[in-house]
Amino acid sequence: MSPLKIFNDPVHGFIEVPQGILLDLINHPYMQRLRRIKQLALSSLVYPGAEHTRFNHVLGAMFLTRQALDVLIAKNIEITNEEYEATLIAILLHDLGHGPFSHALESVIIPGLHHENMSIALMQELNSQFDNKLHLAIEIFENRYDKLFLHQLVSSQLDMDRMDYLMRDSFFTGVQEGIVGTDRIIKTLTVKDKKLVVEEKGIYSVEKFIIARRLMYWQVYLHKTTLVAECMMVNTLKRAKALFLAQKLNYCTPVLAYFMGLENAKISDKTIREFVKLEDADIWFAIKQWQYESDRILSDLSNRLVSRKLLKLRFTKNPIDEESLNKYKLKFEEKMKLNDNEIDFYVIDGNVSNLAYLEGSKEPIMILFKNGDLIDIASASDMGNIEALSKPVYKHYLVLPE
Amino acid sequence: MSPLKIFNDPVHGFIEVPQGILLDLINHPYMQRLRRIKQLALSSLVYPGAEHTRFNHVLGAMFLTRQALDVLIAKNIEITNEEYEATLIAILLHDLGHGPFSHALESVIIPGLHHENMSIALMQELNSQFDNKLHLAIEIFENRYDKLFLHQLVSSQLDMDRMDYLMRDSFFTGVQEGIVGTDRIIKTLTVKDKKLVVEEKGIYSVEKFIIARRLMYWQVYLHKTTLVAECMMVNTLKRAKALFLAQKLNYCTPVLAYFMGLENAKISDKTIREFVKLEDADIWFAIKQWQYESDRILSDLSNRLVSRKLLKLRFTKNPIDEESLNKYKLKFEEKMKLNDNEIDFYVIDGNVSNLAYLEGSKEPIMILFKNGDLIDIASASDMGNIEALSKPVYKHYLVLPE
Amino acid sequence: MSPLKIFNDPVHGFIEVPQGILLDLINHPYMQRLRRIKQLALSSLVYPGAEHTRFNHVLGAMFLTRQALDVLIAKNIEITNEEYEATLIAILLHDLGHGPFSHALESVIIPGLHHENMSIALMQELNSQFDNKLHLAIEIFENRYDKLFLHQLVSSQLDMDRMDYLMRDSFFTGVQEGIVGTDRIIKTLTVKDKKLVVEEKGIYSVEKFIIARRLMYWQVYLHKTTLVAECMMVNTLKRAKALFLAQKLNYCTPVLAYFMGLENAKISDKTIREFVKLEDADIWFAIKQWQYESDRILSDLSNRLVSRKLLKLRFTKNPIDEESLNKYKLKFEEKMKLNDNEIDFYVIDGNVSNLAYLEGSKEPIMILFKNGDLIDIASASDMGNIEALSKPVYKHYLVLPE
Amino acid sequence: MSPLKIFNDPVHGFIEVPQGILLDLINHPYMQRLRRIKQLALSSLVYPGAEHTRFNHVLGAMFLTRQALDVLIAKNIEITNEEYEATLIAILLHDLGHGPFSHALESVIIPGLHHENMSIALMQELNSQFDNKLHLAIEIFENRYDKLFLHQLVSSQLDMDRMDYLMRDSFFTGVQEGIVGTDRIIKTLTVKDKKLVVEEKGIYSVEKFIIARRLMYWQVYLHKTTLVAECMMVNTLKRAKALFLAQKLNYCTPVLAYFMGLENAKISDKTIREFVKLEDADIWFAIKQWQYESDRILSDLSNRLVSRKLLKLRFTKNPIDEESLNKYKLKFEEKMKLNDNEIDFYVIDGNVSNLAYLEGSKEPIMILFKNGDLIDIASASDMGNIEALSKPVYKHYLVLPE
Repeated sequence: MSPLKIFNDPVHGFIEVPQGILLDLINHPYMQRLRRIKQLALSSLVYPGAEHTRFNHVLGAMFLTRQALDVLIAKNIEITNEEYEATLIAILLHDLGHGPFSHALESVIIPGLHHENMSIALMQELNSQFDNKLHLAIEIFENRYDKLFLHQLVSSQLDMDRMDYLMRDSFFTGVQEGIVGTDRIIKTLTVKDKKLVVEEKGIYSVEKFIIARRLMYWQVYLHKTTLVAECMMVNTLKRAKALFLAQKLNYCTPVLAYFMGLENAKISDKTIREFVKLEDADIWFAIKQWQYESDRILSDLSNRLVSRKLLKLRFTKNPIDEESLNKYKLKFEEKMKLNDNEIDFYVIDGNVSNLAYLEGSKEPIMILFKNGDLIDIASASDMGNIEALSKPVYKHYLVLPE
Repeated sequence: MSPLKIFNDPVHGFIEVPQGILLDLINHPYMQRLRRIKQLALSSLVYPGAEHTRFNHVLGAMFLTRQALDVLIAKNIEITNEEYEATLIAILLHDLGHGPFSHALESVIIPGLHHENMSIALMQELNSQFDNKLHLAIEIFENRYDKLFLHQLVSSQLDMDRMDYLMRDSFFTGVQEGIVGTDRIIKTLTVKDKKLVVEEKGIYSVEKFIIARRLMYWQVYLHKTTLVAECMMVNTLKRAKALFLAQKLNYCTPVLAYFMGLENAKISDKTIREFVKLEDADIWFAIKQWQYESDRILSDLSNRLVSRKLLKLRFTKNPIDEESLNKYKLKFEEKMKLNDNEIDFYVIDGNVSNLAYLEGSKEPIMILFKNGDLIDIASASDMGNIEALSKPVYKHYLVLPE
Repeated sequence: MSPLKIFNDPVHGFIEVPQGILLDLINHPYMQRLRRIKQLALSSLVYPGAEHTRFNHVLGAMFLTRQALDVLIAKNIEITNEEYEATLIAILLHDLGHGPFSHALESVIIPGLHHENMSIALMQELNSQFDNKLHLAIEIFENRYDKLFLHQLVSSQLDMDRMDYLMRDSFFTGVQEGIVGTDRIIKTLTVKDKKLVVEEKGIYSVEKFIIARRLMYWQVYLHKTTLVAECMMVNTLKRAKALFLAQKLNYCTPVLAYFMGLENAKISDKTIREFVKLEDADIWFAIKQWQYESDRILSDLSNRLVSRKLLKLRFTKNPIDEESLNKYKLKFEEKMKLNDNEIDFYVIDGNVSNLAYLEGSKEPIMILFKNGDLIDIASASDMGNIEALSKPVYKHYLVLPE
Repeated sequence: MSPLKIFNDPVHGFIEVPQGILLDLINHPYMQRLRRIKQLALSSLVYPGAEHTRFNHVLGAMFLTRQALDVLIAKNIEITNEEYEATLIAILLHDLGHGPFSHALESVIIPGLHHENMSIALMQELNSQFDNKLHLAIEIFENRYDKLFLHQLVSSQLDMDRMDYLMRDSFFTGVQEGIVGTDRIIKTLTVKDKKLVVEEKGIYSVEKFIIARRLMYWQVYLHKTTLVAECMMVNTLKRAKALFLAQKLNYCTPVLAYFMGLENAKISDKTIREFVKLEDADIWFAIKQWQYESDRILSDLSNRLVSRKLLKLRFTKNPIDEESLNKYKLKFEEKMKLNDNEIDFYVIDGNVSNLAYLEGSKEPIMILFKNGDLIDIASASDMGNIEALSKPVYKHYLVLPE
């Protein structure tokens, strides 16, 4: 048996994983399930190449984390073998709690569930399956470990999660705006007072990273067509759930039925057992069946998703006022012969926001100057441009049938 | 409304499609369905990036075909607007008849069905929906049109289908061996006696193309782990069908049930209507459910596929002899407590073959020399290496539980 | 004879040039000379891949300009065949007036010469050689032509010159920060009131472009090691010229001698004839010989350049004050046994600046919104970050022997 | 002082070199000189991006060698620290003996000199400068060291020199045919009986590598335009030398004069001292001056090279027969008013050859099968195609003035 298992990743090349707990975790059904959950949910409706999965992402994030750990070790930062492995485990498992179409799922099917809590629950479950060998990884993941920089590699404004997803999402969408020189950033990482910091020479790369992320938000993650598809997905599930609770849904898969009938989002053993059965295929399969439901709204929304006949979304500078909204609702109620409840599935207002960089937060990106100064990137940048990006951008939108 | 719709493709960049029948066809549910059928079926079990879909592939093949047509026109080959559009339609629709996991499906669920026949059936169906506007495309696709080179762009040993899938599969798997300089080949295409030929200066690029395809076969398409997963998929479906026909299958999706109960593979209107509902999600969803069937074989195979606990395949120089095979069968019958019928789902022999280049066939790749000579690439290459590749390679394999 | 000549460009792929004046100009010795002048002068001392030439750059810029013209034509902007060709000629010839190590040359050998003026002089010379066929190209280059957008493609804050050099310099240096999605920007170009503008959907790409250029300035063009090498090159030539005028220079090449003896920078016919003989090789060859001059300063500086034993430069927040500077000078005068005049070749202060975007200038980048509004990118961006970049950044530096 | 010096390489990314003898050698003037010698001599006349230098190549080859050594160590092959460093030194210095336009130089200016001998002479010179610290590197380079695989990494049919130059030359020319998956090959290297071998799973990658090299030979290294430029360069230098020896050459640079006057190619201390002064710039500078020589042949050839007005070369299936050749000579003698001696500078016949793989040689590429068998790749490949490539290909050519 080869001492190393090699994964071929189109983004990073060869990803080597040694025999042992890391490989055992990768082979665990909880991880294998991530092979069937897409990283970008509905984005492939806009970017047809964006079919990559969360499985490939966590492998990539682990790869970058190992690179970062090796750089730190080469700079004489003390990292024990246990810490090294635990950090890799933490990043490998960080997305375990994602379900299919997380946004839709978390807001409708299991309202109140946050995927990070589910990740922790699944890690603890794995911890008992693996004889408590994950306890340090969990401490690091939950930011309870003394060497803060290990947690920061896993989760912070400059973590390996973001590095990987920006590179990966750029690669698979073909949107060059998100390309990031991760090599350069990683080479300039170091540790000061137990915190992850960036050496002075990495300042422009970090600036580029913040901007790349901002651009990916507007060009990909919050693309209007993706947003409208997500709205429709949420509404489809909402409608199905309402019909289910009213015992008017003809078809439902067993797992979805379990969650639709659930009273609260508390994570029980049973919930975990059912949750890990949920995959993209379940949702698509249900939606395809729902095309033939007698409920007109559910069947129409399902058919639109399957055939990509999407509603139209446009961004507006200001929130739409109640009066205009009502006028639109009336207009389409009449046109589509819908009642007052039904129109809300077709005429929708809302907003999205993005914050490129959270200045002065608990976890700022700190630049370490040659003279020993440690300065927040927002102030350290030679221009005010990062500071300018430290305010959230809001965009309001209106969804209409056409 | 913008006169052009742009698709972002990570492989080719921007793919522009004008308003009109091409865009209408892309928007048709038959085409949208290809968004949910993976190009490489089970290859992502080996190459986790290989999640790309047939939808993206046909867009890419259309893009390359347009490039090729433009090159020919620039060389004063007469191509009318109708022919131009029809060729693009033909390539766009050429994979319409693919179902999920085509190999498994075509050999078990609908035995005797070949995806090309289904493609033609669907094209004809679309032709009637689109007022007979596809008739020229169908003539070209079926090689009934006088200008043979148009069909050859769509289907031949040097067609745009192969060009795109080699580039695309290399890109998404990360296997560099398949990278092909399509630009160079396309620039050297021309037409002689109504047939597609390659100018002398393209000879090395064509040689590279043939070799790249050969290498992709062994490194990707016929990778042993993919092969074993396909075997298991076939056997899972075979077992499910047998149980279904014996009325012992607890769970089945409506569409699968239709096909399992079908007596022959004749393509009726009803068959078409059901076929276009079949997608990857249907198969995965069924397999996930079948993990809980009472039939031990079906539940075990399904669970192995879902959790990626695959059987082991090894290639052998010669076919395995009956005696050795039976010895293996006996050994595992005992070990796994299986009966004589059941062991065939776990101990399997077979073979695969690949032919890099079919010399002197009906459709050879012809090189046009500056002096007017037209020579088969196998003879035109300055070495015997392409000729050496004109014999099929067979590999025998044996699948065992471990 | 093939109607098209193809150049293989690692950045853009195939660049096709039709037979005719464009190809004749490329074949002209004035253009061929650019094959022997590096685009980034001394940057290869930092980025060893950056050996690319101005010849390759102007081909690339012409390629992008043709793409942009084709996009505009597809949007029904009227561009005649003459204008099309003239714009391509203008961009092809725009760097003709560059000499080797332009900065050093223009400040020492031919003080007062600006390469743009030399470009115009050479274009006029070519215009008479080519029967006045370049007059429209010259009008466009000099911004005297009515359709302003043609000039803007050649020279503006969003011109094809910048697009190409950012892509190209990123490619050859390996600095990913400069990668720009030129495809996307070019697709969103259009014309309003005879001026080049960008459609709303291109706003993030333009933002990215401005930032990429800013980052390339600090990471590449104004890299401290490149700056110090340029300082040393200037000082070497300055010293050589002084010795030449004092008739104390033993070795000089004929062409350099002509320019060193020149009294003013007026561009005469003779100056043009000599200028087009000057290439990188002339300067390197001279410097290699000057290693053996008896003048200690010249021989030391020359040897340091040839062996890459560079002086050290560090950036300082503020300009260095006179007192500190003098202290440094005294220290090294003593250490290196130099006199008051000589020390200025080794202890040098100065500053560099970069302006990412010139807001509200004569040539702002204007965004065309769907409602018809035309807004400067600095105001149109949804954040203040571009506005923040509209102020020049100054960096002060000090060069010391070690 | 940072413990690592980082070089940015557009091909491999960051190349790290630790402080110590490797970095000292890189900083030595002998190595810095390689910054001014192009890897592909005259190929940039065909591929304008191909301006990369031997300096960048040897850095890259060292980078790959380190990767290969690390792979071997991970497979428990014993490699001491001294051997590790010595192997890196050997590859770093392996091209030290290259002069400008090596082919031309070695056949005319210093006939009989082979660059490998000069490399060894320079290594020995460095060895005495560096207190004998290079003796192990020299043993490895000269294949006198017991662990043969170390030499094979530096020089064999599968060495890191070839790996790097194929990748690098593909990158800078833009010819995709040469792209090689070096990662994959390096990962499959191992050692058996002190020799470098390739594990079975690397067989297709090696096949691809052999073919990629073959294609690069015909598309790049032996491209007809490069060949004709090299012929012209040889003839220009030959003519200049003849004139020099007849004391009829007006202009010559001091270093060239030394070599032109040299009686034999024995490598003396003086020869070494002069050799390391020779760079591309010397040759170009001389050729530019020679445009103004009174000798008509020299001035014409020089001018043609500078202005890229090249003679024409065409490949022929068979060698041209004497009679036809003489007819051509007569025709052009008359047309160009040349005498019998002079015509040989313009009408030239010759041949080039390439051998893709040298089967059964002293240094075959051996494949190690899982069962322990060790088989030459030519036999191990499942097809006869590599065997077919084991015969040299000859191409005959004829050069004419037009």
